[in-house]
Amino acid sequence: MSANSPSTIPDIVIGRLPLYLRALKRLQQEGKTVTSSHELGKRLEISSAQIRKDLSHFGGFGKQGTGYQIEFLVDRLQEVLHVNKEWMVVVVGAGNLGIAISHYRGFQDRGFRIAHLFDISPQKIGEQIGEFVVQPVRSMREIIRREGIKIAMLAVPAEDAQGVADQLVEAGVQGILNYAPININVPANVQIQYIDPVTHLQHMTYYLAE
Amino acid sequence: MSANSPSTIPDIVIGRLPLYLRALKRLQQEGKTVTSSHELGKRLEISSAQIRKDLSHFGGFGKQGTGYQIEFLVDRLQEVLHVNKEWMVVVVGAGNLGIAISHYRGFQDRGFRIAHLFDISPQKIGEQIGEFVVQPVRSMREIIRREGIKIAMLAVPAEDAQGVADQLVEAGVQGILNYAPININVPANVQIQYIDPVTHLQHMTYYLAE
Repeated sequence: MSANSPSTIPDIVIGRLPLYLRALKRLQQEGKTVTSSHELGKRLEISSAQIRKDLSHFGGFGKQGTGYQIEFLVDRLQEVLHVNKEWMVVVVGAGNLGIAISHYRGFQDRGFRIAHLFDISPQKIGEQIGEFVVQPVRSMREIIRREGIKIAMLAVPAEDAQGVADQLVEAGVQGILNYAPININVPANVQIQYIDPVTHLQHMTYYLAE
Repeated sequence: MSANSPSTIPDIVIGRLPLYLRALKRLQQEGKTVTSSHELGKRLEISSAQIRKDLSHFGGFGKQGTGYQIEFLVDRLQEVLHVNKEWMVVVVGAGNLGIAISHYRGFQDRGFRIAHLFDISPQKIGEQIGEFVVQPVRSMREIIRREGIKIAMLAVPAEDAQGVADQLVEAGVQGILNYAPININVPANVQIQYIDPVTHLQHMTYYLAE
């Protein structure tokens, strides 16, 4: 099975793989064991040709006409995305958003587990939030280093986001998912992604009559 | 200026337009007035050829070599995405997530304004959350109809999401942004988008060494 090295595959292709994985897992939940680029494409509103092309970067998953073995494709995508293991994640910010993230049930069986919840506010530190006790941001660096944590979710006010991101990077974090409505600068070797509800809303309004 | 009808443009292209708009507004904030598909592409990690092709669906924005007038392109993209007006949006669910959404400052000047916050819980109804008073879900349909609201954000527990979505659609909502970690069925004429942090996390872990 041939596979390109990570650097040769466009980032936009990588961004679609989690969508394929999610759709495949839904098909599994529906009891299906085999699917096709056509079926996947219909669910995701992506052309079947695009899906076949994207997947071909990672080796041969099936021949046209015979379909994809879902279990095999799920395993392979999890391997490619490095979520055939569980990543420890920290959440910074124990306001409403950080609390909501800490309670979010969508991480289960998808490669991530929240390990710690941090906040800077003395009123919040020590508070029990679900299964977490809010820890002080001043302990963050040591804990992240000691436990080798590589991923953080940022749920702090916009004005604090850059400062906290700098501390996370210094502690060894290599991937930051930022919920704050502000652009953040990180070194080139650190991944940054944004949760921006407005891009989704604008995608929808394109289709809405005025 | 030629432009295709909405139905002929792939949805995946539409999904990139809000990213272009966001990047262009950032360039404006940095004081720039002209940009290029190359500069935009570098910021977004999308090929300049792809960006030129995407934008060509909506008419002529500039010639290769001369660059794009940012203000003109921002105006045109806002028009294409129908965010050259302000859409009223309702939030359903006044738990931690709904409260966080109600306080989110990223909607400003991007085409959306939260008009109402609903919840089903008698303990929450009547509570003041920032500028909103939590209203009962049983009033939702009447308010949405009366005010002609077309967009809703869903911040309810996964098990309630489909039921609430059904009520929203019945009330006339045509676009739903779902934060719950569950797939929702809506009629073909209703837009649905998902906030799924895991797809972003998996996109990042692709690049992280194990």
